Amino acid sequence: MALRVVSALKLGLRGPGSGLLRSGTFFLSATQHRLEKMPSSIGFPVTSRRPFSNHRILVDMDQTLGVATMKLKNPPVNSLSLELLTEFVINLEKLEIDKSCRGVILTSGASPAGGCLMALASDYRIMANNPKYTIGLNETQLGIVAPFWFKDTLVNTIGNRAAEHALQQGLLFSPDDALKIGLVDQIVPEDKVQSTALSMMSEWLKIPDHARQLTKTMIRGPTAHRLLKQREADIQNFVSFISKDSIQKSLHMYLKSLKKQKE
Amino acid sequence: MALRVVSALKLGLRGPGSGLLRSGTFFLSATQHRLEKMPSSIGFPVTSRRPFSNHRILVDMDQTLGVATMKLKNPPVNSLSLELLTEFVINLEKLEIDKSCRGVILTSGASPAGGCLMALASDYRIMANNPKYTIGLNETQLGIVAPFWFKDTLVNTIGNRAAEHALQQGLLFSPDDALKIGLVDQIVPEDKVQSTALSMMSEWLKIPDHARQLTKTMIRGPTAHRLLKQREADIQNFVSFISKDSIQKSLHMYLKSLKKQKE
Amino acid sequence: MALRVVSALKLGLRGPGSGLLRSGTFFLSATQHRLEKMPSSIGFPVTSRRPFSNHRILVDMDQTLGVATMKLKNPPVNSLSLELLTEFVINLEKLEIDKSCRGVILTSGASPAGGCLMALASDYRIMANNPKYTIGLNETQLGIVAPFWFKDTLVNTIGNRAAEHALQQGLLFSPDDALKIGLVDQIVPEDKVQSTALSMMSEWLKIPDHARQLTKTMIRGPTAHRLLKQREADIQNFVSFISKDSIQKSLHMYLKSLKKQKE
Repeated sequence: MALRVVSALKLGLRGPGSGLLRSGTFFLSATQHRLEKMPSSIGFPVTSRRPFSNHRILVDMDQTLGVATMKLKNPPVNSLSLELLTEFVINLEKLEIDKSCRGVILTSGASPAGGCLMALASDYRIMANNPKYTIGLNETQLGIVAPFWFKDTLVNTIGNRAAEHALQQGLLFSPDDALKIGLVDQIVPEDKVQSTALSMMSEWLKIPDHARQLTKTMIRGPTAHRLLKQREADIQNFVSFISKDSIQKSLHMYLKSLKKQKE
Repeated sequence: MALRVVSALKLGLRGPGSGLLRSGTFFLSATQHRLEKMPSSIGFPVTSRRPFSNHRILVDMDQTLGVATMKLKNPPVNSLSLELLTEFVINLEKLEIDKSCRGVILTSGASPAGGCLMALASDYRIMANNPKYTIGLNETQLGIVAPFWFKDTLVNTIGNRAAEHALQQGLLFSPDDALKIGLVDQIVPEDKVQSTALSMMSEWLKIPDHARQLTKTMIRGPTAHRLLKQREADIQNFVSFISKDSIQKSLHMYLKSLKKQKE
Repeated sequence: MALRVVSALKLGLRGPGSGLLRSGTFFLSATQHRLEKMPSSIGFPVTSRRPFSNHRILVDMDQTLGVATMKLKNPPVNSLSLELLTEFVINLEKLEIDKSCRGVILTSGASPAGGCLMALASDYRIMANNPKYTIGLNETQLGIVAPFWFKDTLVNTIGNRAAEHALQQGLLFSPDDALKIGLVDQIVPEDKVQSTALSMMSEWLKIPDHARQLTKTMIRGPTAHRLLKQREADIQNFVSFISKDSIQKSLHMYLKSLKKQKE
């Protein structure tokens, strides 16, 4: 597990037309930790836990801290299939209406493309300092184009120039390089990722929830609303693009090259 | 006195509907220096000075250099009370219509919240390299939210991601950290703050005023106009927010925690 | 030759109302290399070259790589005269309709003002590590103001704060400082500029053209469209500004000061 993203969950802003990216949920993000390895020394009284499991996602809600943890389990590479994403959204919605939940920790392994977006949608990113892990929006390498809301979120995080360069070349960054350009906030030894996430989360939770949530909405709101406004057009646009023979051919060639690398 | 902010005063753009944040004045900022300590070696002929004093602000206008200096004196912590801010605006307006004034230097001690905004509104920020001084928009720590125009100005200065992180956690930065994220432009030993401000100001004043002013308007204008357009709504919004029982309670708890720290 | 800027040429997006800054060409930029010094070891089969020369610009199109190179030759300082810019646009248009051309390399010497804009309009900037070369938008030093689309492009590259500072003071940056603020992407020894440009170009050309071009349009489109929309007003604005007696006097004084420096 290479990456943990920390976010304090934003509650109480549910409105009509809710969905993953509506005003109340869009701003949250999640850090998922490995329940099986969570050291008891961190002080989670086991009795306070209330885990609920799904097919592809394991959620652990710690009632004492008010922090939920989500672990994606979609072997072999946590592909963001429709099934996985559906479960992901359902779990986030559950946590949002759970008033005892103040923060979510999400763990993901490698973080290309959609995995990187999940990290970008979070409030804080911690990456294992192991060069085998990479993070980035590598869409152009596949012959496709990152949607505008991936781009917006990347620009918001690392600035326009770094985003432009990264997106055009479809760069995947090592932990060191990701830290350098601000794509992650911290790199730590792999066995310290989880404890760092918890300690950072406790810092964020010192801030009164309402003040932090309103501040987050002020900053992330415009980007979220831009997506919501153009959501249907963006979907149509993507479907028509990805269905083209030339694009399918390009994707086929990319997959073939991946296979060749393995051989 | 921890921080000096340097700005060349923008003259000649006064229009109808003037005010601190109108097109002509918004862009200016001030550096205030300690008159009592200003070394004669800097070469201000004392005879050329024309100081005018107020209750809470001391202004010193050097006719030779065309640089005014403003010192806030509102013990014990330069609280930005209505009285202080009113005097501040009056003094800036006076300097703006004074054709002999080309630049203003403003000195402030600690720079949380509104003090940080004054620095951000300036063209250049110099901070004493003493860890006892901090700077930042720490509103969330008080349970309140920085207004959108504080946020805009911070984003313009340190970028979106650093601003998001700083605002959500209400971070106050040490001189080293402030320099690292670009919240200040220079850190210097405390006894060099004033001379550095003067020498930097003389660099800026080498540029023809009209070219510099038009350039400044081009860059800062959109942010200023956004505030002007939403000024009344923002005031109403803030008043209704701050009057809530829950927010008053949150502020009360913060003040109590400050008191506790002192004991 | 101090600076080489690398850009993959964007083809196939020609539309009505074409021009240097139209949707199809605006996004491209060029790296020009010194044909006379291009080492054969780089592997351009001479027979594959198809150079076409102009009065002030030399273009070399390598059919094997699909990379064109443009060299501005307008002694003594590559002044961006109407004649030079006209040839420049014609050459870019020729390359754009040439389907065998996938990238352009442009070489320029010193890069103040308009020369800096050419670099900013490119995808990648490589600068010779020789302090005699400088780059920047120094308009205020001449008593004039960089147009808004210079400013937009600079902000996109180095961020709002660094752009504000650079534009107000009209700063020209040394290679080290230019790299530090992100105004160039790489600095290399002067004799490695050309080979670095070629090797970087080959990295960019590994990405399928259509994906890279659409990504570039997504990021640079809004800035280009803003210019196109306000083009006529900007021209009128500049002409009326530059015709003023006071501005002419300011320019005259600047030229005089340059002359004095030489004596």
